[in-house]
Amino acid sequence: MCSPPHDGMAAPSLREAFCQWMYHIKLSRIISLVLLILVFVTLVNYHYLPKVESNTPNADIHLTRNKLEAFEDFSSLTAADLKLRIEEMSRIKRSVSTELRDLEAKRQRLQQELSTQGTKIEVLKSELSRYQTELERLKISVEQAQVAQNEAIQRNTPALAPPKQILSRNIPAILPSISTMSSRHCRMFSCFDHSRCSLTSGFPVYLYDPDVSSVVYDTFDVDGFLKTTIKQTLGYNAHLTRNPKEACVFIVLVGEALPSRPLENGRYHQSITIDTEEDDKDFHNKSSGVVKPKYKSPLNVTTLEKLPYWGGDGRNHILLNLARRDLGIGSGNIFNTLNTGRAMLVQSTYLHEQFRLGFDLIVPPMLGPPGGDVWHECAPMVPARRKYLLSFQGEMKPTVQSNSIPNDVPLDASKSYNQNSDDDLAMDNFAIFYLKRMSKMSSHTGAFFFQFECIPATEQKTIAPIRDWSLCGTDSSRRNILRESTYVLIFAPGNQEYVTTTLLQARLFEGLRSGSIPVILGGDQVLLPYSEVVDWKKCAIFLPKARVTELHFFLRAIPDADLLSLRRQGRMVWEKYLSSVQTTVDTIIAIVRNRLNIPPKAIESVRAVSVFNSSFVPLRVDPVISETEPEESLGPIEAPYASPAFKRNYTLMLTQGYEIWNDWGDPFSLYAQLPFDVVLPSDAKFIGSEHGFRPIGKGAGGAGKEFCEALGGNQPREQFTIVMLTYEREKVLLNSIAMLYGLPYLNKVVVVWNSPKPPAEELQWPDIGVPVIVVKAMRNSLNNRFLPYDIIETEAVLSMDDDAHLRHDEIMFGFRVWREHRDRVVGFPGRFHAWDLNYNNGWLYNSNYSCELSMVLTGAAFIHKYYTYLYWNWLPQAIRDKVDEYMNCEDIAMNFLVSHITRKPPVKVTSRWTFRCPGCPVSLSEDETHFNERHKCINFFSQVFGYMPLLNTQYRADSILFKTRIPHDKQKCFKFI
Amino acid sequence: MCSPPHDGMAAPSLREAFCQWMYHIKLSRIISLVLLILVFVTLVNYHYLPKVESNTPNADIHLTRNKLEAFEDFSSLTAADLKLRIEEMSRIKRSVSTELRDLEAKRQRLQQELSTQGTKIEVLKSELSRYQTELERLKISVEQAQVAQNEAIQRNTPALAPPKQILSRNIPAILPSISTMSSRHCRMFSCFDHSRCSLTSGFPVYLYDPDVSSVVYDTFDVDGFLKTTIKQTLGYNAHLTRNPKEACVFIVLVGEALPSRPLENGRYHQSITIDTEEDDKDFHNKSSGVVKPKYKSPLNVTTLEKLPYWGGDGRNHILLNLARRDLGIGSGNIFNTLNTGRAMLVQSTYLHEQFRLGFDLIVPPMLGPPGGDVWHECAPMVPARRKYLLSFQGEMKPTVQSNSIPNDVPLDASKSYNQNSDDDLAMDNFAIFYLKRMSKMSSHTGAFFFQFECIPATEQKTIAPIRDWSLCGTDSSRRNILRESTYVLIFAPGNQEYVTTTLLQARLFEGLRSGSIPVILGGDQVLLPYSEVVDWKKCAIFLPKARVTELHFFLRAIPDADLLSLRRQGRMVWEKYLSSVQTTVDTIIAIVRNRLNIPPKAIESVRAVSVFNSSFVPLRVDPVISETEPEESLGPIEAPYASPAFKRNYTLMLTQGYEIWNDWGDPFSLYAQLPFDVVLPSDAKFIGSEHGFRPIGKGAGGAGKEFCEALGGNQPREQFTIVMLTYEREKVLLNSIAMLYGLPYLNKVVVVWNSPKPPAEELQWPDIGVPVIVVKAMRNSLNNRFLPYDIIETEAVLSMDDDAHLRHDEIMFGFRVWREHRDRVVGFPGRFHAWDLNYNNGWLYNSNYSCELSMVLTGAAFIHKYYTYLYWNWLPQAIRDKVDEYMNCEDIAMNFLVSHITRKPPVKVTSRWTFRCPGCPVSLSEDETHFNERHKCINFFSQVFGYMPLLNTQYRADSILFKTRIPHDKQKCFKFI
Repeated sequence: MCSPPHDGMAAPSLREAFCQWMYHIKLSRIISLVLLILVFVTLVNYHYLPKVESNTPNADIHLTRNKLEAFEDFSSLTAADLKLRIEEMSRIKRSVSTELRDLEAKRQRLQQELSTQGTKIEVLKSELSRYQTELERLKISVEQAQVAQNEAIQRNTPALAPPKQILSRNIPAILPSISTMSSRHCRMFSCFDHSRCSLTSGFPVYLYDPDVSSVVYDTFDVDGFLKTTIKQTLGYNAHLTRNPKEACVFIVLVGEALPSRPLENGRYHQSITIDTEEDDKDFHNKSSGVVKPKYKSPLNVTTLEKLPYWGGDGRNHILLNLARRDLGIGSGNIFNTLNTGRAMLVQSTYLHEQFRLGFDLIVPPMLGPPGGDVWHECAPMVPARRKYLLSFQGEMKPTVQSNSIPNDVPLDASKSYNQNSDDDLAMDNFAIFYLKRMSKMSSHTGAFFFQFECIPATEQKTIAPIRDWSLCGTDSSRRNILRESTYVLIFAPGNQEYVTTTLLQARLFEGLRSGSIPVILGGDQVLLPYSEVVDWKKCAIFLPKARVTELHFFLRAIPDADLLSLRRQGRMVWEKYLSSVQTTVDTIIAIVRNRLNIPPKAIESVRAVSVFNSSFVPLRVDPVISETEPEESLGPIEAPYASPAFKRNYTLMLTQGYEIWNDWGDPFSLYAQLPFDVVLPSDAKFIGSEHGFRPIGKGAGGAGKEFCEALGGNQPREQFTIVMLTYEREKVLLNSIAMLYGLPYLNKVVVVWNSPKPPAEELQWPDIGVPVIVVKAMRNSLNNRFLPYDIIETEAVLSMDDDAHLRHDEIMFGFRVWREHRDRVVGFPGRFHAWDLNYNNGWLYNSNYSCELSMVLTGAAFIHKYYTYLYWNWLPQAIRDKVDEYMNCEDIAMNFLVSHITRKPPVKVTSRWTFRCPGCPVSLSEDETHFNERHKCINFFSQVFGYMPLLNTQYRADSILFKTRIPHDKQKCFKFI
Repeated sequence: MCSPPHDGMAAPSLREAFCQWMYHIKLSRIISLVLLILVFVTLVNYHYLPKVESNTPNADIHLTRNKLEAFEDFSSLTAADLKLRIEEMSRIKRSVSTELRDLEAKRQRLQQELSTQGTKIEVLKSELSRYQTELERLKISVEQAQVAQNEAIQRNTPALAPPKQILSRNIPAILPSISTMSSRHCRMFSCFDHSRCSLTSGFPVYLYDPDVSSVVYDTFDVDGFLKTTIKQTLGYNAHLTRNPKEACVFIVLVGEALPSRPLENGRYHQSITIDTEEDDKDFHNKSSGVVKPKYKSPLNVTTLEKLPYWGGDGRNHILLNLARRDLGIGSGNIFNTLNTGRAMLVQSTYLHEQFRLGFDLIVPPMLGPPGGDVWHECAPMVPARRKYLLSFQGEMKPTVQSNSIPNDVPLDASKSYNQNSDDDLAMDNFAIFYLKRMSKMSSHTGAFFFQFECIPATEQKTIAPIRDWSLCGTDSSRRNILRESTYVLIFAPGNQEYVTTTLLQARLFEGLRSGSIPVILGGDQVLLPYSEVVDWKKCAIFLPKARVTELHFFLRAIPDADLLSLRRQGRMVWEKYLSSVQTTVDTIIAIVRNRLNIPPKAIESVRAVSVFNSSFVPLRVDPVISETEPEESLGPIEAPYASPAFKRNYTLMLTQGYEIWNDWGDPFSLYAQLPFDVVLPSDAKFIGSEHGFRPIGKGAGGAGKEFCEALGGNQPREQFTIVMLTYEREKVLLNSIAMLYGLPYLNKVVVVWNSPKPPAEELQWPDIGVPVIVVKAMRNSLNNRFLPYDIIETEAVLSMDDDAHLRHDEIMFGFRVWREHRDRVVGFPGRFHAWDLNYNNGWLYNSNYSCELSMVLTGAAFIHKYYTYLYWNWLPQAIRDKVDEYMNCEDIAMNFLVSHITRKPPVKVTSRWTFRCPGCPVSLSEDETHFNERHKCINFFSQVFGYMPLLNTQYRADSILFKTRIPHDKQKCFKFI
């Protein structure tokens, strides 16, 4: 009756005012008013009517006459007449009431009819809107398809296929050998034969088998452990070839070269005389000793030239001289006086004059295991500050004469200014004197642990040929000190001629392993391993010896955050490049490959095996369209479109090489895409690089309508793959799959069938418009959730539990947010790690309502496919084992991994998500043990990582116009989220 | 009457049901029902009463009797009696109605009283809740203060103050000179006197004044432009000292050393004979020529030793030989045969043997302006691909004999394998032959622009001493080609002995300037400028000459995103380190300083001058507490706490040195904090590094209550500063300030008073508990919004318009989100840049409702203080001028700047914000010109930046439990947002 006040029609103001009033008065008032009226009406009927009769003159007369008539009638009529009259009146009353009843019935009938009609109209309307949405979606889809088609046509740069793999077909031709002087100046451009290593060759590496007796291995008795291990570890390297004809580089293991037995005087054999340039007074004082003729000058040009593929000048050869047992200098620098032709050298000891930067390689000694996980060797990273601020253990022979420095030595470094290399000793003496004084002055704080004299480690020479500090005690005694030292002091060799020594490298190795940050005094004299790719400034501190006076100040000036960053980086570098023989060999190969800008071998995906026999065709049904899905068009339904792959093979190492080596620590494999891929500037999308981009409103922007028609953002168009792990919940699974019908940008659904028994044949698989591939899992493991299957062809992977019921709009929005944070876990169920306040020694997993999160569960989250590779190749096996042990925690592991790599928290998306399906069987997560396991996992994982990588976040991503009032002509980004 | 259904009391279910029903039926139905009832009652009164009388037996009898009586009465009574009776009845009626009226009045009175009481209760309640909130807040504040106090007490590491600045007090002592051989092996540890440059010395640099006639400048006629410019540019450098006694390094400008006039044979003088190691057949063929005695060997050891602070060996001296007019090789390598002692060399041409890596510096020739902005010299970055894929212009004398290579040369690089340096020419010939063939084969596509012979540029030698390619044409003709070339080919010098030549550097300079990506053929032979800090792989492509066969494939394999990333990086490096004399000089100094790990000079803040006289005390009033503020405790009110400053002086260059040089491009100044500072792992917050952290629930996490009590997150506690720009809107301003009363974590309010006339004396400034400092602006400029005032002591700056009315909860949440994205603009009003679809040639500023944003206006946004420095020091002046010209666009400029540096979009926060105050005078933004100006700004800024740095974002940050249903015992993060 009363249209609401905001109705647009211009109604008479009075009526409007009344309506206004009607709408605003209280119900209770109305009711009391009505009751009042009722009472009044009744009263009036009783009292007013007679009064009217009596007061109105005309009526008065008429009524009076009537009355009089009645009176007359009464007086004159009989009772029978009266009865008749009454009957007549009651008849009239009856007919009136019947009529009224009829009317009422009619009214009711009409109303019923009306409501039926209304319902019908509603149904029609909703159907109409559904069709309209469908139509719109189809329209967008058609439009998008046209754009894609145009792109395909206009693409005037034909897809450039890499040329056929060019491999050499011959063993290296014999060329004349080069002079020692030329050899000294070898660089890649002058000594490396690029023709054997085309960009597309895949960098084949040949190893002279150390077990096959060859001239080299005959001469030298190479350490047995190394022989076996190198052969084995290279076997794991994807670049290894058995065919010398196609090889790009040839690896020769020449050491750790050990004579058959130690010499009588307890020292190892020194077969190589060191070529001294200026300062040789410390050398050559040990050339005596009984040497069997067999070992006299065992490695010489002739020996090398006998290598079958030496080619006269040894080009493309890599000579490995890896120190292991003998950390002294003896065998460390076997190549010094040798003309190694064009071969590259790999060892731990070099003279400045000898080391050819960008050609030779410095490696650490082989102190680690052959391969495998090494996390258990490392110390925890926190607390940042340990018992000792700085420690040093070592002894130098001849003993540094610190006593000879008077106590009143002026602490002015200029006095000890290093005029020429004769002053090396003076500089060292000054430094040691100063350090001792420093230690004495702060002895009450116990900040320093200095040991300048000790029982030398067993593997030490009594007299080292170069002035270097020998190690003290045993590996484990040193480790105990290092684990308690915030920083460890490492002296550059006393002779400035050395750019590196094995002992220096060993100290570095041990320091990094125990999380003790190396402080290299004389750091400007030395080079650390792989310095052409590893940024050592991020994990070690370099200080000129002259600055020893500022050492204490400097160390105190390093804040905790930087300290932990140095330690964390040091551990990463150690784990990835130094820790084991495997990592060392892989790193050597990767560096040479990197120099040639040949991409690494593509990482291997896991071949997906269908759970069905090839002959079996699963039953298909049309899915029941869910009524709960909002009727909105969320995007086009497109043809499957795989993410472009391997586009950056040749540029990745250029534009992001630094990050690959130093941030992500993974230069060994090539990935189809990285979550860190560079972004185009937004004008390129309109000028010249339009391909694949779908800007909102074609670039004009816009609200909901335009938004839902195109992906927009900073990245080109793409799709995503849903991966569902399932275990014997067929109905739940099929229901979940059916709900994906019509989901835009969905590329494929991969169902990982964890159960050993295959799905029932009579199962009816809903046909949702995209392929649903059911993959057989080798065994029932939650780790399978993150298997990098080859059939996952998109960068975006939506990991979903089989009972996770996400709405389409949620998925769409999540996908868009993920596209802005491709390196993070972007998803729905948020959790956090809480500090255990009761015991104060560890973490608790927490799923309570919270305003700060640190994990997003992978039961409903987008992740980049890259992380599935890392989950299997980067994470230590212990973590996957723990997941299998508990049948739990795989999602926590993924969150740890991603936060560790990125140092960023995950992103939680929208609140509306409806995670578990109502009525589904109660899942694991509800029970008590489940939680206890997760507490344990979180603490165990922190141990493995060495710290807690999770980070906190205090916000949630919502669509921009969520809960915003907007004008009628605009549409929200999503209707409900 | 009916309490709402959600009332907690347990009412009888029937009543409840009725109430439920009452609450749910429609008003219109009630009304129609009531009317129906009215009609019925009336009808019943007329018809039913008689019926009752007639139907009810007893009543019938009784009534009938009455009636009969009445009839009898009527029949027997007179009219007067009747009248009396009627009167009586009407009297009764009147009294009843009066009674009714009284009752009604009473009821109304009671109701009124009730409502008054209710209101009173409401007021009391709200007051109570306010007091409770206040109490709670105080409690938290006290708690927080205690934590802070404890921290202060427990801080057993005393705040380490840097020691007194140690400056040398003497000029260098005279030491014996060193041999040429020793000089050849100079490194920092062997030739640099660290004692003059303590860590805290601030790196003082002394310049031998080129205008004061000294021995050096007497001998050489240094280019006048360079003399003046160097002196001037060094004057701008903060490290310059006039006192040689305290200097750490001494700079000598020895070039571009030009003889007074060119020699008769048209060639410049070659006073230096080049020391050749192996291959000298190209040299020494030009030692004839008439040379005036004065210029014979003008720069020699004696000349240098005459420098007053040479100290015998030239330690800590930097010899600048900057090429400018003479790009040939003539004067390029004046130091080659000279014993320069321990001095460092800076020039563009070096032999491999001569260049001491980590000691000498390679610089580009001085082809740019003395200083100032250079953006207008650069080409736009998009489109990614230009007319030519690759271009080359150059001529080599002696002409490369490409004809001598037979047409059937096998394209197998191994044939031309470089056996020794005699093959240099063969290799070049092969490369050129191959390039020509490649160009011919794809001549139809016009992809290549190769010019191997040309009229040499005027500044060229006819016969260059080394085989290098001379430039063609003029600077502008070359520039035209380069601007149309995606890549530019640069040949490494024909002689492999050279690690760099001036011509190579000139080509690099020109290529980068025009956005043509340098492809350096023979890239493994050469070094580019500043390679110890600049990662050239990110802006140039290095290819061994042997790989010329793969060049085309390689270039085609670079995707647009990488291409633009290379170009963008190249421009950054060019602008920052190469473009002008100023940048070159600054970079040289920064690199040497960087080697010593001495921090740069702190960037200068702008001194804030109060708008009030020092004697004037502004009036103060207590602020009226706003009723609109939600009653929630949002955090503790703390004592002012400035962000810790300059904590990373000595570590920044270590742990983030790479990023400083290559990503942020700002190694020249030291900032108190960076938005990129490293984050502690979350366990460090509980083990050892607790200082300053305020974890949510002490680490246990929690929902709203615990959340509002502590900042949590990954960063330690901090506060923020509000900066308000105001111009003659005193009332609006004071109102805005008053609303900040009680805002937690607020450190200070800085009001920038843009108006030339000071605030009225009688203005009453609200006392909001924190300092409100009103700063006098030098002139009315919107750029003042971002002045880096010294009084801003926090990292977080909330930039606010004077009429922006943000609620406290919004500010708190925005602050928390900013703490997670310290490098981005985090704020409230979102805008975006749209592509102009009509003209398809530029951008439009857009403030419509949109689901994709790219800007957040700084009228209400958090930014890091770092960006205020960059706004004034990094942005080209043209941008600030444009802001002043339009009195507009400063917020756009800031968004451009931040997105350019970070390559990230801004973050928009919550929807609830209420930006403009209702009833405030209409601000600028409403009018048409305002928008037009903003369109123009956006396009102009893109021109200056060379591309469109803005990026899109499709989500908004909301608090985690926003619009989430949570249990009763939990509290949301914020009540309303």
